[in-house]
Formats: sequence, structure tokens, C-alpha cells
Amino acid sequence: MQQALLLSPTLKSWISCSEDSDFPIQNLPLGIYRKSGQSPRVCSIIGTTVIDLFGLYKAGVLKTPTLRLEDLEQETLNRMLAKGKATLRNLRKDLSEIFRLENESTNRSRCMPFLQELNSVTMCLPVKAPNYTDFYSSREHAYNVGVMFRDPNNALLPNWLHLPVGYHGRASSIVVSGTPVIRPKGQMQLKDGEAPVFGASRQLDFELEMAFVIGKSNQLGHPIPVKVAEDYIHGMLVFNDWSARDLQKWEYVPLGPFLGKNFASSISPWMVDLDALQTFKVEGPPHEKPLLEYLQSSGPQNYDIQLEVYLITPDGSENLLSKSNMKYLYWNMSQQLAHHTVNGCNMEVGDLCASGTISGPTPDSYGSMLELAWKGTKPLLMKDGSQRTFVMDGDTIIMKAFAKKDNYRIGFGVVRGMVVSDL
Amino acid sequence: MQQALLLSPTLKSWISCSEDSDFPIQNLPLGIYRKSGQSPRVCSIIGTTVIDLFGLYKAGVLKTPTLRLEDLEQETLNRMLAKGKATLRNLRKDLSEIFRLENESTNRSRCMPFLQELNSVTMCLPVKAPNYTDFYSSREHAYNVGVMFRDPNNALLPNWLHLPVGYHGRASSIVVSGTPVIRPKGQMQLKDGEAPVFGASRQLDFELEMAFVIGKSNQLGHPIPVKVAEDYIHGMLVFNDWSARDLQKWEYVPLGPFLGKNFASSISPWMVDLDALQTFKVEGPPHEKPLLEYLQSSGPQNYDIQLEVYLITPDGSENLLSKSNMKYLYWNMSQQLAHHTVNGCNMEVGDLCASGTISGPTPDSYGSMLELAWKGTKPLLMKDGSQRTFVMDGDTIIMKAFAKKDNYRIGFGVVRGMVVSDL
Repeated sequence: MQQALLLSPTLKSWISCSEDSDFPIQNLPLGIYRKSGQSPRVCSIIGTTVIDLFGLYKAGVLKTPTLRLEDLEQETLNRMLAKGKATLRNLRKDLSEIFRLENESTNRSRCMPFLQELNSVTMCLPVKAPNYTDFYSSREHAYNVGVMFRDPNNALLPNWLHLPVGYHGRASSIVVSGTPVIRPKGQMQLKDGEAPVFGASRQLDFELEMAFVIGKSNQLGHPIPVKVAEDYIHGMLVFNDWSARDLQKWEYVPLGPFLGKNFASSISPWMVDLDALQTFKVEGPPHEKPLLEYLQSSGPQNYDIQLEVYLITPDGSENLLSKSNMKYLYWNMSQQLAHHTVNGCNMEVGDLCASGTISGPTPDSYGSMLELAWKGTKPLLMKDGSQRTFVMDGDTIIMKAFAKKDNYRIGFGVVRGMVVSDL
Repeated sequence: MQQALLLSPTLKSWISCSEDSDFPIQNLPLGIYRKSGQSPRVCSIIGTTVIDLFGLYKAGVLKTPTLRLEDLEQETLNRMLAKGKATLRNLRKDLSEIFRLENESTNRSRCMPFLQELNSVTMCLPVKAPNYTDFYSSREHAYNVGVMFRDPNNALLPNWLHLPVGYHGRASSIVVSGTPVIRPKGQMQLKDGEAPVFGASRQLDFELEMAFVIGKSNQLGHPIPVKVAEDYIHGMLVFNDWSARDLQKWEYVPLGPFLGKNFASSISPWMVDLDALQTFKVEGPPHEKPLLEYLQSSGPQNYDIQLEVYLITPDGSENLLSKSNMKYLYWNMSQQLAHHTVNGCNMEVGDLCASGTISGPTPDSYGSMLELAWKGTKPLLMKDGSQRTFVMDGDTIIMKAFAKKDNYRIGFGVVRGMVVSDL
């Protein structure tokens, strides 16, 4: 079967899947699940049915030639990623064959022992990132921050339109969706010129981001050209780059964010294959300055992926805070990766690169509380009658990402995190 | 044997060791070595004799109870670090017994097969860091940079005296001493207001740093108190934080250094145990501002470790560029680690935390070319008649670190790197 056929909107699975599911048979993302009494295993999903790939392989139903059984009994997807695109493409093809409607009679009964409902298992951290980089690639976000903290007439710094600004983040504190986020403590300066005080952050924020996962390494000293950058990217995740604005503001000059970010970053449990997203490629925004050659990418290199942020207040009511789209990014992933490596920096399999906050052009599409409540000056009214300028203890932030076209939808599930004052 | 006895200046080894060696029997650092035809192994060193710990253990000479043979046949020391301080203390004690002069007759012949000259083996990267953080803890360095790039009257930024400023670095591009350093290419702005150009960095610099290695992890959400911070630190290394000043200057606002740093950082091959350095503890400089409680450390928490930087020009002549000392650091390692984790950030075994450039009070003790040649205004004259404002292709930078007291010296060996235009 050709890659294109895997994505055909007419393809259906014998595993039931509602029309608005993030996980039709065209998606087949990878994840790691755990169930009591067994070690973590690689899985995929159709609808709300988790498919145990270890079990399927052990039973001889799944036979992807270059896979080995131990690749599928792992705490993370890193070893799977290291198998390379060719193997993982074959795996997707094999899964598509096994689970397509036409093959139900052959496969249903022998697959049943390895299928289980999503709500009966625990999803684990899908990738253990050897390195994590955060970009700052939304023009709207960089502009909003510049207006708030500097000068509306010079909101973008001089380098911003010339290169995808990025910085190194902390890999150890990346956690899977569902992990509680402890409000960080630290130093903050309450008034300019005063001595700092110590305490729990009063300005805890989220940042709506997408992250890509490196599937192929390059050697130190060997840049990745922009035109082949996607060969090095395996898939994508939803990423919440939690930020303590008060800690960040006091510490970040001159070397960048540190404790304001490294207390937690949350990722969604399913890694969606770049192959599953190919039909959602679109042109990005036009570049306003001529680009140096190493950043010149042509054709549609952005992805039309709809993004939503919800805040659930402690009473359980769900408040839609923002609707944005990954297509707004000024710098696409290929440009980010070409820039990251142009000096010879080496990427490792499993590395995560996040986009930076993805804000859209209108106030209801901003990707952080800082922007939505405009530095605290425009509190947001919640359904329960309370107001928010930042995230409060007991609040849960949910981010959703999905691409929609024709009669199907390729989604990422959600990344969710509740803020707590302490463990 | 007590820890203190291991460090007794009267202790001698039956392995010959000159008086000015970095590696007397009191040191016993750990490293990883490779020899053709065999897998990488954990080793130690006395004088210039590399001790194969795998061989010694396999032959039954070394019997540290909680070690296993496979711990000693490894590509890095990460697994050894994970064994914990108690095991590695026992290992040091056992090695000290085996190799002390008094035990020569029992041990010499059965140890000989596992001893080899340093120049006959290849030393490997000692630690694969899951995360790498760089601090900025030398007041003199921060002041010098502030004077050069901002204002002599406000050289230190407002946060600097209140917290150990730090940022996340790139772990993947940390290389072992001896690895050639490829001059990075990238964007730079030659004149303010002009469009950036692409090319090889013209302002390649070194930074003289020391790094500590994490030997014990803390869980996310559980800060490490300053008073017990050294329980989490296993040892130290010499660290050259190569920096491309022109790339860094253009890119670093507002999120910090990125491509200006992540093309390479060089570390020395020997990890010196913190235990071996205890007699070199001294008081640090007085703090000029009251510290928040979580940063208050008492007693001697700095280390009196002498540092030297040499530049070898292509003709082979050696030029001493700088003599500094780790004791100058305004923020000690315990304060750095307490700060790093006060927000709950989790450290992982093998993590590296570098000090930032260690400059002393006088111009001949500055730790970077930027400061030594004062932003290019005071070129340094080399023995071969040439001048330097930054590092040129074909130059080799060597950094040495050693502590000296009574009749012995605990040293780190060197970290060495030659700058090349391309591979």
C-alpha cells in the first residue's frame, strides 16, 4: 500500500471510531501504555481502543520485518524512533492492513486479546528527550510580548525577522499529560528597585505550543539543510510550556528563562507521525525580510492544525480560553531545524523542539494567559463567576490539537495538567 | 580506612608518580578508556598509569561488594554514578588499599596486566549528561562583560547579587578533551542596523569553567536544600564553554545564548571525586547583599583550585594566557544547586552544571579571550610574534586545573581542543 492510500478518507477500520475522533485508522499514532502487572509497552490507538503492539507482535499478527519484540516492550518510544522512518512506515502500513474494515474477518478474533479501552490503561511519557529546545516562532506572540514589555513601535527585536529565535530548555522536567503541576517557588521582585522576595509564583501561566520529535540524528559539525529537514523529524506532540512569569521576569536577563520554565513542561501521550499530517500542509505567512539562503524553504511547509485551550475551574466547568492554529507560525519546523544545526549542533533521536507560544491574529486566539488577560489588565470571566489573570491552584489546563479535512480528522488527543500548591 | 586517611599526604603508591603529578594515590579519579579490540571500560589513574578497573574486578583483585562486573564495562560513568556515593567511596578505599606502597608485594604482579601507560590508550567522554546547565557565577566576569557591553556604573544587572544566574545549555554537543572544535557558521550582524550576514564566526572564544557532576537525583517538586547540596554532587571536571561571540551577540536577546554556544563544549576526561578535594575547601568572597534563606550556606564552601589557560599557536609554542582560581566564584556549587532546584526542578544522575567563566580580580586572571583582549582592543602578543584578539584556526586551547597543599597535588589533567575551519 502506498503512503497516500493510508490517508485515504474512504479507509475505515473494523474497530469502531466516531467521526469526531482524533484517532481514525489514518492516524495510527504511537504511545507507551502501562497496565498493572505488566511492563510498559508500545501501543497505537483507533477511536478509543488502545492497540498493544507488543502483544500483537508476540502473537505473530504484526510482522513488520525490521522490528524486534524487545523494541515494543519499552518505557519510551526512543528505541522505536531509532529504528528509522522506513521501519516505522512499514509498521503503519502493516497496522493499516490489519485493522482496515475489509480485513475484519481475518483479524478480529486474533487481535481482540490485544485491544483495550483507553480509559482502562495509563498512558506514559512517550519520549525521554535527550535535549529539548524551545523556539519563539509566532510573530503574533513575540509582537504581543514586545508591546507589553517594551515598545509598541519596536515590539519585535532586530533579530526576530531574520532567524527563528530559540533557546535551550530543561529536558528532565518534561512530564506526560495528567501529571499534576506544582506551583513553583522562587525569587521575584515585586517592585522595580526593591530587593526580591521568596514565595510561590503569583503569575503561573501556560503556553500553547506544538513540539516535533527528532527521528534521525546528525553528526556534530554537519548541519541539516532546510530542504531535507523533515527527514529528521518523526512526529509531533502537543506541548504546554508552563511558565512562572514573575520568576522569569526577575531572572531572565541576560541569559534567558531558567527557573521560570524548568519546573514542568507537559506533553501529550500520543506522537502523531508526520506522514499522517502530509495532507494538512499549507503555506506559512509571507516573510517580511529577505532570508539568508540556509533558511529559504519553498512550498507549503506549515501545518494547518487547529489548537484549543480550555481552563477547567475547580467546580468542573470548562472554559474555552483560546482557539489558535499552528499554521500561523512565522518560522516553520524545517527552518527551525536548519537554523538549530547551521553551526554544526548535533540533534539526537528523541530530541524535542517546541514551537514557542502559538498566538493567532485575534485576541481570542492568543496562546498564553499573559496575552489573553493582557498582563493582568483584562481579567477573563469564568463560567463559575470567578476571574482569571493567571492560572490558580485547582485549575486544570487542557490543550487540544487536531487537523480536519474531507471526512476525517487527525488529532493529537489532549495535554492536560492541574495546578496544585504542593504534592 | 577512614576517608581522611585516603587523603593523608604521607600515603604513597607502589605505582610511580612524580611530585608534580595531578594523579597521586590520594586522587583516584574515574574515567572511561578505550583500546583497540576491546569495549570501553571504567578506569582510574595514578601518575601516568591508567588502571583498568574492569580487568582488576574480573581478576578478583578488586572486590567492592556492591559493584558488578558490567558496571565497569561501560561507554560512560553514568552507571557508576548511579551506584551512589557509598559504593564509590568503598571503591576509592579498595583502590587505595591495593595500590598503597605497603601492599606492593601482595598486589604488584596480579595488577600488572591491568596497568597501562596513559599515552597508549584513548580517553573517552566520561559522562553523557542528560541535562547541562551553565551558571554565570564569577562576579569579576559578569562585571567585565557588563562594563564592556553596558555601563561601568551599572555593570552588574539588578538580579546578579541576589541569585546565581544560570541558563540551560546543550548537552548533545559536549565532547571530550582532544576532540577538534569546528569553527561554527551562522548569522552575525556586522554593524548595528544592518541586515545580518552568514559566515564563519570571526570571534571564537573559550570560557574557563569548572563543572560538577550530579551523582544523586531529586524528584520533581522536591528542592535540594543548600546545606545538603554536596550529597548530590559526585565530582568535578574542567570545562571549556566555547563561545562564538558574534553569533551570540546577534541571537541572544531576549532568550539567551543558543548557536553561539551549542556547537561544542569540551570537558576533561577525568572526574575528580569531591571527596578528594575536601582539604581544599575555603571561604568564598563575602556576599554584598543579604541572601534569601534558601541560598544561605555557611562555612568554607568554595574550592581552592588553581586554573590555567594556554594557547598553543600552530608552530607549537605554548602561551600562558591566564591564571585564575575557582575560589573566586561568588556563588558556590551548593548555592547553584539549591537555586536550580528551589522551584522543584529535578536533577538527573550525570547532569553537568558548569560554573560560568571564572575570572579573577587582575587582568592576567581573566577567563575568556573577550576579557583578556578586552573586546579586541588589547591584542595579546604570542611567542611566535602573532597577535590574538580571539582564537584562530589551528590554535589549541588547553585548560589545567589542580589543587595543591602540603606535599601533594590533586589535579584534573587538562581539557584540550584545537580549532579547525572544517572537518
